[in-house]
Amino acid sequence: MRYHKIPDETVRRLPVYLRGLMASANEGHRSISSRSLADSVGVNSWQIRKDFSYFGDFGTRGVGYDIERLAKEIKKILRLDVIRRAVLVGVGDLGSALLAYPGFGIYGLDIVAAFEVAPKKIGRTFNGITIEDFARIDTVKERDISLAVVAVPRAEAQLAVDRLVTAGIKGILNFAPCKVSAPKRVKVITLDIAMELARLPYYIPRTGRMDEPQQVRPVAADTVT
Amino acid sequence: MRYHKIPDETVRRLPVYLRGLMASANEGHRSISSRSLADSVGVNSWQIRKDFSYFGDFGTRGVGYDIERLAKEIKKILRLDVIRRAVLVGVGDLGSALLAYPGFGIYGLDIVAAFEVAPKKIGRTFNGITIEDFARIDTVKERDISLAVVAVPRAEAQLAVDRLVTAGIKGILNFAPCKVSAPKRVKVITLDIAMELARLPYYIPRTGRMDEPQQVRPVAADTVT
Repeated sequence: MRYHKIPDETVRRLPVYLRGLMASANEGHRSISSRSLADSVGVNSWQIRKDFSYFGDFGTRGVGYDIERLAKEIKKILRLDVIRRAVLVGVGDLGSALLAYPGFGIYGLDIVAAFEVAPKKIGRTFNGITIEDFARIDTVKERDISLAVVAVPRAEAQLAVDRLVTAGIKGILNFAPCKVSAPKRVKVITLDIAMELARLPYYIPRTGRMDEPQQVRPVAADTVT
Repeated sequence: MRYHKIPDETVRRLPVYLRGLMASANEGHRSISSRSLADSVGVNSWQIRKDFSYFGDFGTRGVGYDIERLAKEIKKILRLDVIRRAVLVGVGDLGSALLAYPGFGIYGLDIVAAFEVAPKKIGRTFNGITIEDFARIDTVKERDISLAVVAVPRAEAQLAVDRLVTAGIKGILNFAPCKVSAPKRVKVITLDIAMELARLPYYIPRTGRMDEPQQVRPVAADTVT
């Protein structure tokens, strides 16, 4: 049998669909059309159908997708059915906010431990989690934790990642605004919050006109006004 | 003369390059090869050259890119040379962390005002910014603020966005984990932190084998093991 890897861009959209399906289920729906799902998540319905075609056929013409079955399948593909426990490294302003953040539950994710280097924070409890000494990060090995969230200053990010890799962590969400290196077997996603904000001005029109991001001359242009 | 729009994916990478260039400049460099830049930002050098080809030729063979000139040009294309001032809506755990976040400066961005609905927070000062009553959000119109960061609960996100649009905001970074609607002239980027974490398990191998994300059977597969 031939298997295909799902494209990264589809993997990126699957949690979006999952979020939309959960919202629809919370509103009491049991099925949803690709058009309604499209509206609620902001993705074209042809794109949704194409993405779903990578892993199965969950739609019935005229009825739509079975929400529960589709959500379950997406969770399975994203492996959110088995990998759920994450550790937080760095309990500063952002780290504290992440410990308090209620949004992880929708994906079945759970931050179950937090580590810090600052002695005055170690031993304190935030949202039911007692902060541990980062020197003991290796203990996550015995605690069935595969994911880590790194919220330390840039200068400390690589060291934190190195130690997490040694501790057996397999996936890292890095909030430090820099590239960090890890062995290929460890997946790292860097989320630079400021960079997301920095993408916005490009799309803001110079004049009052709409939908006109700044346009630039291509290098190869051979005519000049 | 023909102008071309820069692809979204390139716009997404430009701030990454900018961050890499700033880091290199901070280390005392004045020029950088596309290979060094590639290593420092984690993007292939051919991709970098292709991205830069949309807006100019900043490299000299054997010398590399002039860091200052290239950084300036990228800022200009991203319009970070003119649009810098942002307002924060929602000063909860995440919002407070964003007010304290030092990372915006590297892109020349500045959060200059913060608004809340909770009476007990209005009037308090965080990181030099006095929190204002969200009922007065319209006042951003007279303050040369084009960008907004929304860090309110999901149920309040759409209302916040509607009010920001009325107040003349042109670009919104939304942290509420839901799709929000805005007129086409307003660019909205939604950053669902939990969703980024939810993308990781897919890439974690089931066994001890490396680089083997879960693979699934294509719908069209007509042979079965």
